[in-house]
Amino acid sequence: MSHNTDVSVNIRDSDCFVVGVDFGTLSGRALVVRVRDGAELGTAVHEYRHGVMDTVLASSGEPLPADWALQDPEDYRDVLRHAVPAAVAAAGVDPERIVGIGTDFTACTVLPALADGTPLCQLPELVSRPHAYPKLWKHHASQPQADRINELAHARGEPWIARYGGKISAEWEFAKALQLLEEDPDTYRRAERWIEAADWIIWQLTGRETRNACTAGYKGIFQGGRYPSRDFLRALNPAFAEFAATKLARSVSPLGGRAGSLTAQAAGWTGLPAGIAVAVGNVDAHVTAPAANAIAPGQLVAIMGTSTCHVMNGTVLVEVPGMCGVVDGGIVAGAYGYEAGQSGVGDIFNWFTDHVMPPCYQDEARRRGVTIHDVLSAEAAGQQAGAHGLLALDWLSGNRSVLVDHHLSGAIVGLTLATRPPDIYRALLEATAFGTRVIIEAFESAGLPVTELVIAGGLLRNPLLMQIYADVTRRSLSFASSKQGPALGAALHAAVAAGVYPDVPAAASVMGSKRDAMVVPDAVSGNIYDQLYADYLLLHDYFGRGANQVMHRLRALRDRAQPDRAPVPQPREEARAW
Amino acid sequence: MSHNTDVSVNIRDSDCFVVGVDFGTLSGRALVVRVRDGAELGTAVHEYRHGVMDTVLASSGEPLPADWALQDPEDYRDVLRHAVPAAVAAAGVDPERIVGIGTDFTACTVLPALADGTPLCQLPELVSRPHAYPKLWKHHASQPQADRINELAHARGEPWIARYGGKISAEWEFAKALQLLEEDPDTYRRAERWIEAADWIIWQLTGRETRNACTAGYKGIFQGGRYPSRDFLRALNPAFAEFAATKLARSVSPLGGRAGSLTAQAAGWTGLPAGIAVAVGNVDAHVTAPAANAIAPGQLVAIMGTSTCHVMNGTVLVEVPGMCGVVDGGIVAGAYGYEAGQSGVGDIFNWFTDHVMPPCYQDEARRRGVTIHDVLSAEAAGQQAGAHGLLALDWLSGNRSVLVDHHLSGAIVGLTLATRPPDIYRALLEATAFGTRVIIEAFESAGLPVTELVIAGGLLRNPLLMQIYADVTRRSLSFASSKQGPALGAALHAAVAAGVYPDVPAAASVMGSKRDAMVVPDAVSGNIYDQLYADYLLLHDYFGRGANQVMHRLRALRDRAQPDRAPVPQPREEARAW
Repeated sequence: MSHNTDVSVNIRDSDCFVVGVDFGTLSGRALVVRVRDGAELGTAVHEYRHGVMDTVLASSGEPLPADWALQDPEDYRDVLRHAVPAAVAAAGVDPERIVGIGTDFTACTVLPALADGTPLCQLPELVSRPHAYPKLWKHHASQPQADRINELAHARGEPWIARYGGKISAEWEFAKALQLLEEDPDTYRRAERWIEAADWIIWQLTGRETRNACTAGYKGIFQGGRYPSRDFLRALNPAFAEFAATKLARSVSPLGGRAGSLTAQAAGWTGLPAGIAVAVGNVDAHVTAPAANAIAPGQLVAIMGTSTCHVMNGTVLVEVPGMCGVVDGGIVAGAYGYEAGQSGVGDIFNWFTDHVMPPCYQDEARRRGVTIHDVLSAEAAGQQAGAHGLLALDWLSGNRSVLVDHHLSGAIVGLTLATRPPDIYRALLEATAFGTRVIIEAFESAGLPVTELVIAGGLLRNPLLMQIYADVTRRSLSFASSKQGPALGAALHAAVAAGVYPDVPAAASVMGSKRDAMVVPDAVSGNIYDQLYADYLLLHDYFGRGANQVMHRLRALRDRAQPDRAPVPQPREEARAW
Repeated sequence: MSHNTDVSVNIRDSDCFVVGVDFGTLSGRALVVRVRDGAELGTAVHEYRHGVMDTVLASSGEPLPADWALQDPEDYRDVLRHAVPAAVAAAGVDPERIVGIGTDFTACTVLPALADGTPLCQLPELVSRPHAYPKLWKHHASQPQADRINELAHARGEPWIARYGGKISAEWEFAKALQLLEEDPDTYRRAERWIEAADWIIWQLTGRETRNACTAGYKGIFQGGRYPSRDFLRALNPAFAEFAATKLARSVSPLGGRAGSLTAQAAGWTGLPAGIAVAVGNVDAHVTAPAANAIAPGQLVAIMGTSTCHVMNGTVLVEVPGMCGVVDGGIVAGAYGYEAGQSGVGDIFNWFTDHVMPPCYQDEARRRGVTIHDVLSAEAAGQQAGAHGLLALDWLSGNRSVLVDHHLSGAIVGLTLATRPPDIYRALLEATAFGTRVIIEAFESAGLPVTELVIAGGLLRNPLLMQIYADVTRRSLSFASSKQGPALGAALHAAVAAGVYPDVPAAASVMGSKRDAMVVPDAVSGNIYDQLYADYLLLHDYFGRGANQVMHRLRALRDRAQPDRAPVPQPREEARAW
């Protein structure tokens, strides 16, 4: 790990600190960081009391329909109340030396609120209305609305649709808002604001509403300074015409900006000094790039967990076919932030270990004090590339980039009676590496050279997987240094908001870090993988680009045969399980 | 079960009996049958002492190369010595009332012998020479020779190659003999006969050499009254020119014929009366058709075990693309016997249960007193067709019909994070049913209507599998009545040889039987399977007919990466594991 200590920064005579708070799917983590070098001094996690409400609404016991996923905003405040003081205590620093707080959040997690920030679900008369609660990123019940948004956008030739690979997700702000309108118009009417939890939490800290450039761009279709037009919204639903004008933000704040100052109330919750800087809201995957000090154009950061999110800055605005989105200032102010993703990665490996391999196999691994991933990886690591004779398509959770088709599915070719579980496991690892190579090549073909591949997220701890990624992409891999990248990234933004550093790049160069060339590609494997990748592309295009729509037909048959079957987990944009 | 008792047959006043002996891969089974109605009265099994020698030669401890599989002919004689008397004792019949003995054998299992029938491996000076032993059907080390035979046959435009779907198997007589010549010319020179074990055992019973029409045709390239020409054999290897003329048969005997009379020596082994009729040799799969009384043109008998063999008689000689072989009198004298096959069926299901599902899963099933097949079948049986969203190609052991390509491999398409083991298991069952439908349609397209589908073999005991076959083929399934079809078929031939019946059809109509319409197709499932079958065909042709040779490339990569890996089990022509 190397920190650039030559950068001239405005630090006080003695050490000062910042707090980063990472709001995940099931819990929030606070981290205390020293601003002069990014040292991580203390951390604490607070589990959400209500977790994810995807079967019943806690307040009423009412069952929720399939594909719903809600949260309780009081759980977010509880992270401020519990995790922040605990982290400060663990760090052993004087709270008076803490100069700022920053956050990152899952996205798009979005809620209806009053004009003063009160969540509608905290109004007594709405406490038992499901639509009054925050809809978590993985709430997928807005798919019909998303489908209509996409159809209409293409029919009208809306220019913004190309910025999202041609598809707006059911997870995003407009689809979820339209569902709210159409299923619970009363609650829709009561909503004076429709706000990302990433921004709502800042409101709680500062007492004033802001909207961050990241979620506004990637989730709120805010492009070139405006939202989709009134005409467009009216065509979706006449009652939706004024949605953007009345319930979204007037202005959007740049990442790294100061959203405001910590209120006395929030100081009471956190134990931090009132008046310190609060950074503009942000998103978990995106703050990881500065935490790894990997925000220069061409540095592609892959945050690898249950899924993988790829973020990279560019100096030019181009359209990369099949990307998730490009947003001006979406990762760092002053650059075009590009985002791509693989909707299933660790999820696929877990599927194989948890659901194909029966529980008894896991029990055996546990008795030996290892995980089933350790067992399979160790067996698969002994193989030479190509030795298992298999080739897989990594679409068990659909394909987000570059095909942008959630109705694709996985495939394995080359099975014989000699095929064994470590062979299949390794083929699945390789398939996700091929998927990453497709994304890298899509960026490069669009005129965005990828000069460095930086890995963050929990999966970098699997040496076999990392070697495969290096060999398949024929690149050395850098690793993000921090194990809590998002919280560090949030803290780094706090340091900028506090004025310790002039901007995010300056802060990243000191507080963020990566370790270079942690894995070096093997040329022999690389040559074999070049051959396998050529075949991966053949199958990718055959099954993915319309030559044979068998995957769509199989899914349609399945859905007709078992309407009540639990929905398949839908792809997501960010990896949050590291 | 219905026996046609109106047929006028020449039975003695009181009951008489025949013995059928089925020589399998690991053991031989004797069965005592009443000639007037085919009643099975007693049976006994004798395990071969040497089993399959595929790692070391028992006599010397010498390691055997990969792909070898030898047997010891004394084990075959031991079946006569032990299983036959035990079956007679179990039946409780007077041996004096036994009027004939018939046999069936695995094929092509072939050995070198002296002109008096002495196996070369029983000569003291050759007892430690591997090439002096019988080569079991699944000896696959002759593949290089088979490749040369096929290449030359096509280059010379040999007319007989079309009778075998364009390909002679490494398992068959000529490939194995050429390997013997080229690897152990001394032993080749000592071999005065090159004889199927199916015929050698008859020689032991009668004291005279005969060759049966079935193995001569399907395994010995005996077509239109002749073997491949001297010129052809010379072009393969000059020293091979006289092979057929000197080491094979002068004449070929029809199935159901009397090979001779039981010698005093064989009477001593078996406890049967000397002088009784001994039927011409035969093959396990082929005798099953008369045992099921399913030998009329259009009755397709599928013998389903680890693999599936399909046999059907026709009145005309046509070339069915990709069949295993067509032989005049190959199943029943006077008809053209057609054979097709699926090289992996039960083997594929066992691969999944035994090698993908770990042993602990099987232990759990065992504790519950069931098999893992029971568990998975029960779970999969609750699904509607199409509900799992999967489609598989059943080529994990290659494809024998109609693509005739052992270097193909299996594939599964449609995997999602919601896919569970019973889904995959059911998709594998369905894939083999689709493979059977391809074969049925190949016969019908060639002008051989399939009027009835008759199932024999152990897999008919899986109700889920049978329902899937009925639904996929949209046909009612008949089941062979006997659980020991081959031994019954062998016994039935003995009754013909003894003159109790005038010919095999007459005997089959009395002694053989099937139960009709045991499973009836479901129209709703059938409609769904029609859609899935259309997609199966798309993938079948895409991967199997050259559009995408990825399976060949994957196998080549695999073979280069792991030259020492244990060979994948090769496809076989007959199913013997019921």
